[in-house]
Amino acid sequence: MILGKVIGSVWSTRKDENLVGSKFLIVKQLDLDYKEKDNFVVAVDSVGAGEGEIVLVATGSSARQTTITKNKPVDAVVMAIVDKLDITKR
Amino acid sequence: MILGKVIGSVWSTRKDENLVGSKFLIVKQLDLDYKEKDNFVVAVDSVGAGEGEIVLVATGSSARQTTITKNKPVDAVVMAIVDKLDITKR
Amino acid sequence: MILGKVIGSVWSTRKDENLVGSKFLIVKQLDLDYKEKDNFVVAVDSVGAGEGEIVLVATGSSARQTTITKNKPVDAVVMAIVDKLDITKR
Amino acid sequence: MILGKVIGSVWSTRKDENLVGSKFLIVKQLDLDYKEKDNFVVAVDSVGAGEGEIVLVATGSSARQTTITKNKPVDAVVMAIVDKLDITKR
Amino acid sequence: MILGKVIGSVWSTRKDENLVGSKFLIVKQLDLDYKEKDNFVVAVDSVGAGEGEIVLVATGSSARQTTITKNKPVDAVVMAIVDKLDITKR
Repeated sequence: MILGKVIGSVWSTRKDENLVGSKFLIVKQLDLDYKEKDNFVVAVDSVGAGEGEIVLVATGSSARQTTITKNKPVDAVVMAIVDKLDITKR
Repeated sequence: MILGKVIGSVWSTRKDENLVGSKFLIVKQLDLDYKEKDNFVVAVDSVGAGEGEIVLVATGSSARQTTITKNKPVDAVVMAIVDKLDITKR
Repeated sequence: MILGKVIGSVWSTRKDENLVGSKFLIVKQLDLDYKEKDNFVVAVDSVGAGEGEIVLVATGSSARQTTITKNKPVDAVVMAIVDKLDITKR
Repeated sequence: MILGKVIGSVWSTRKDENLVGSKFLIVKQLDLDYKEKDNFVVAVDSVGAGEGEIVLVATGSSARQTTITKNKPVDAVVMAIVDKLDITKR
Repeated sequence: MILGKVIGSVWSTRKDENLVGSKFLIVKQLDLDYKEKDNFVVAVDSVGAGEGEIVLVATGSSARQTTITKNKPVDAVVMAIVDKLDITKR
C-alpha cells in the first residue's frame, strides 16, 4: 500500500453511474518522515478519511475489495487511516 | 485514478473484434495545477468525454468495470469528467 | 494502453505449453510525435501486426481478454493497429 | 516479487473491517547487495516476518492469494522470508 | 513481458505454504542489446530456466496462469526461455 496524506477532493457530476455517491480524495504520497512527494493519486474513500489525515491507499484490483468499491471502475481506495508509524531506530 | 486532460483520439480500423465502436482517447497526465506532464495514456471513453476536458482515468482490471469495457482487452478507461479540484489551502 | 511500434520479435522454443503458437512482438514505446522512447515491452500479437506498424498495447489482466491470450501467462497484448492520431491543434 | 527489508510497522485503528488483525509492515526495497533503496511499500504480513528481516513482497491481485489476505483490500503481502541470495559469480 | 537474464536464485525456508517447492529466480532486466539494467525482479520458474539464460517474465495476475503458480501469492513468473531476438535492421 501507498502511504499518503489527504489534501483535497475531486468534484465530478458526469461519471460512471456506479460511482454516484463515491467520494474521490486527492492523496499526496508521503515518505517515511511524512514529507510530501510530488506524486499523487485520486482514490475513493472507504473509511471516512478527512483532509489532512495520513492514510494507506490500496491500488489495482485490490481497490475493489471494499463494500463501497466492489465491481466499480476505481483503481485506488483509501482503506486505512494511519495512527502512527513505528520504525526501528537505526 | 490518474488526473488527465483529453487532447485527442486514436484512429484504428484493425483491432480486436470486441473493440469495434470503442473510442480511444489520448489523455495527457496533469499535475494539481492542471499543468500537463509528459506522460500520456490511451484510454477508452465511457462517459462521453470531449477534447479539452479534465478527466479521471482508471487503469488495470478496474478499467473493465464499465458497461462499455466489460471483458474487453483495454487497460485504461475514462470513468469521470472533473468539475473542479477542491484542495485545502496550505 | 501504450502507444508503440513493432520493431521485431522474440524467438522461443522452450516456453509454457499454452504459449505454443503465440507470436511475441518487441514493441518500442512511442511519444505523440512517433519518436521512439527507450522503453520496450514484449507483447503477444492478437491482430496480425507486422514490423514497423504503430500499435496499441494493453497490459496486465486486460492482456488476457482476447481469444488468443485467454488464460495464458502473458501480461501484454497488441490489440489494435493505429491508423493515425488525431490531436487537437494547440 | 520485490526484495525488501522490514524496518517497522504502521498502526491503524480506523480501517476496513476486514483488515482487523492484519499487521501492516513497512518494507524498504533492497538492491542485490542488501543496500536499501529510497522506495518502500506497506505490506500485510502472512509469514510472521519480524523487523530487520529480509523478505519477498508480492503485489497486486497476487497479494490476495494467502489465507490472511484473501478478498481483502490489500495490494502487497510479505509471503517469504529470505535465507540468502545465491548469485553466480561474474 | 519483461526481457531478462537469470543471474541467481533466492533461498527461503519460511514462506507461504503453497510456495513449497517453487524456485525463486533473480532476473536482471535487459535492454535489446542484452545489456543488464539496474532493475531486477524475483520470479518463480515455470520452464526450467537455468542461470545465465535469457528469459521472458510475465507479471501481475498473469504470473498465476501457469500450472506451477496457479492460485499462489506470486506476481512474476518466467514463462519462456529466449532463443534469439529478431530485430529489423534500421
